[in-house]
Amino acid sequence: MCQSNAFLIRKNGTEEMIMEDVSLITPQEDGSLELTGLFGDRLTLNASIKEMDLLKHKIIIQEN
Amino acid sequence: MCQSNAFLIRKNGTEEMIMEDVSLITPQEDGSLELTGLFGDRLTLNASIKEMDLLKHKIIIQEN
Repeated sequence: MCQSNAFLIRKNGTEEMIMEDVSLITPQEDGSLELTGLFGDRLTLNASIKEMDLLKHKIIIQEN
Repeated sequence: MCQSNAFLIRKNGTEEMIMEDVSLITPQEDGSLELTGLFGDRLTLNASIKEMDLLKHKIIIQEN
């Protein structure tokens, strides 16, 4: 099991976990980011990847 | 071991594996992409993330 958890840093600086067990990350052409979970659940955010640490299983996303 | 392999799609459409066992992916403010390998080796590319499939352990990067 190599899925990671995704954390969103909002413009006000707060950080929250927004998805567990992310299996697929797809930046979209309109600048948004699509996250797909282990069970096919999808989340589209107006955000960009800030860092992905595959050792810590942590995806950090920054709100645009 | 949850590292993934990174594949670069060049402007001419060819695809090649450019790093095995990527542990950290950090988009830079100048639009480049920094990949860090399991042993701390680093590669900076003028490229963007196209898709990351954590189930297939595959990171697809598109040359800018």
